Amino acid sequence: MYKSALLLVLFVFWKTAGASNESSPASKISLHSTILQEIRNVYIYLPPDYEGSDSLFPVIYVTDGDIHRLRAIAGVVEGLSTATLENQMRQAVIVAIPNTNRSRDLTPSVLPEWTFENRKLDTFEQSGGAKQFRDFLKTELVPYIERRYRVSTERILVGESFGGLFAADTLLQQPDLFSGYLIIDPTALWDDNYLNRQYELKKETVLTTSPRIYFTFANNSHLGKIGLTNRKWGERFASALKAASSNPARVSQRYFEDETHGTVAFLAWYHGLRALLPAE
Amino acid sequence: MYKSALLLVLFVFWKTAGASNESSPASKISLHSTILQEIRNVYIYLPPDYEGSDSLFPVIYVTDGDIHRLRAIAGVVEGLSTATLENQMRQAVIVAIPNTNRSRDLTPSVLPEWTFENRKLDTFEQSGGAKQFRDFLKTELVPYIERRYRVSTERILVGESFGGLFAADTLLQQPDLFSGYLIIDPTALWDDNYLNRQYELKKETVLTTSPRIYFTFANNSHLGKIGLTNRKWGERFASALKAASSNPARVSQRYFEDETHGTVAFLAWYHGLRALLPAE
Repeated sequence: MYKSALLLVLFVFWKTAGASNESSPASKISLHSTILQEIRNVYIYLPPDYEGSDSLFPVIYVTDGDIHRLRAIAGVVEGLSTATLENQMRQAVIVAIPNTNRSRDLTPSVLPEWTFENRKLDTFEQSGGAKQFRDFLKTELVPYIERRYRVSTERILVGESFGGLFAADTLLQQPDLFSGYLIIDPTALWDDNYLNRQYELKKETVLTTSPRIYFTFANNSHLGKIGLTNRKWGERFASALKAASSNPARVSQRYFEDETHGTVAFLAWYHGLRALLPAE
Repeated sequence: MYKSALLLVLFVFWKTAGASNESSPASKISLHSTILQEIRNVYIYLPPDYEGSDSLFPVIYVTDGDIHRLRAIAGVVEGLSTATLENQMRQAVIVAIPNTNRSRDLTPSVLPEWTFENRKLDTFEQSGGAKQFRDFLKTELVPYIERRYRVSTERILVGESFGGLFAADTLLQQPDLFSGYLIIDPTALWDDNYLNRQYELKKETVLTTSPRIYFTFANNSHLGKIGLTNRKWGERFASALKAASSNPARVSQRYFEDETHGTVAFLAWYHGLRALLPAE
């Protein structure tokens, strides 16, 4: 099950007809995952200096990574990592992973019915597959990317909402899988405060590594107690990590008063990525 | 001189091998401008719904539009105009215009030596060509785009620094050329307060139309009196326009305390474009 027998099915997307610096910003590849037992597509953005240099580039992995999200986050990275915005961050490869079964892959515990204070928030045919999805990343996708592209082992995980929950869970279960985490308005309301409950169990192992972590939270007070509690639990988790860290300066959190759960990603990418991959 | 004898030289760039919604986000075309007597390249981004619909799309024209800036601003637009960020703005075509001679095209008056309080800020071999460049836009580029692409006559001009000076000057000289203006930290220090001096001469004609206008200003106080005066004069210009407008709600200005002249563009695009092309 854990053999990384990846099969390259396709390698097409934005083909370029231009030269060097103007070349293909993104391609799409399809892999057969033995672990997930399905074909997974991923979009790959190569930074402007990728061709024509021998450098190794860090890699940003993006959950919920459909093509629009890839282009949006690539825009942020391209702006911040070129003279456009004064080279504030390093150029990076981006690997965006579209969903096939979102609730299955991004949630860390099985929860057919998700409730909060006896109120049903949602139901799921499948949930709790975060470990499997993480195994796919660890033993199939990341090795594939690191074999095929000129990248360093510096890896950033970006997740929003359920993707933020997944990123936070990865920080608890396997903190050294990534060197940086951008956790955007995570679903801290999941499974009766799952993140803080797990944190109590796992904190000794989390704190032996010191990845850079950037949390962002949105203003969801229009959702009433649900929104307020999600923020409270999320901020509690972030604060606990920071307080217990041997290097608190590597853990940041920022609240965006004027953004909601559905809009906060953009400012999170902007502020978070330049903090996680600052120019050297 | 004003005949729009455009010659299509090239039509290549990010060619797509994908289908429909994943198709080419950008192409590069080259035009021969009779007015400017040179070849001009422009990058064109088509939004996700361009293919497969009969809709007309607004057009965003971007000065200083090199490929990195095009990709960055396209990322902002793609994020804001899709479900990625809750469809906050309309999808739009983007036309980014790289420079050939920046000081010639984007400054509105001839100034071989640019001074402020007897201090020399810069010297230019060529300057004062804004009217010619505007004529290129009006009689060559815009008609070309409107013939060739499925676009509406709703046009937004985005300019930063000298490009912001150009956009502000266009607002004074030919306000109806664009329906919206995003003016990013404009060089209000140009030619001894050129913008406010011209405003006094032109305000009657400016105020007969009511384009949407969004000004952004950065914190350049680290530059001392030069930075402070540039902001003061720029904000004076913006406030004068707003106060005199028959529709003040269409004129916005926003100051970014944590951004400088070289970094403010990103937040300006984010906040400005969703204000200028809000979802309907």
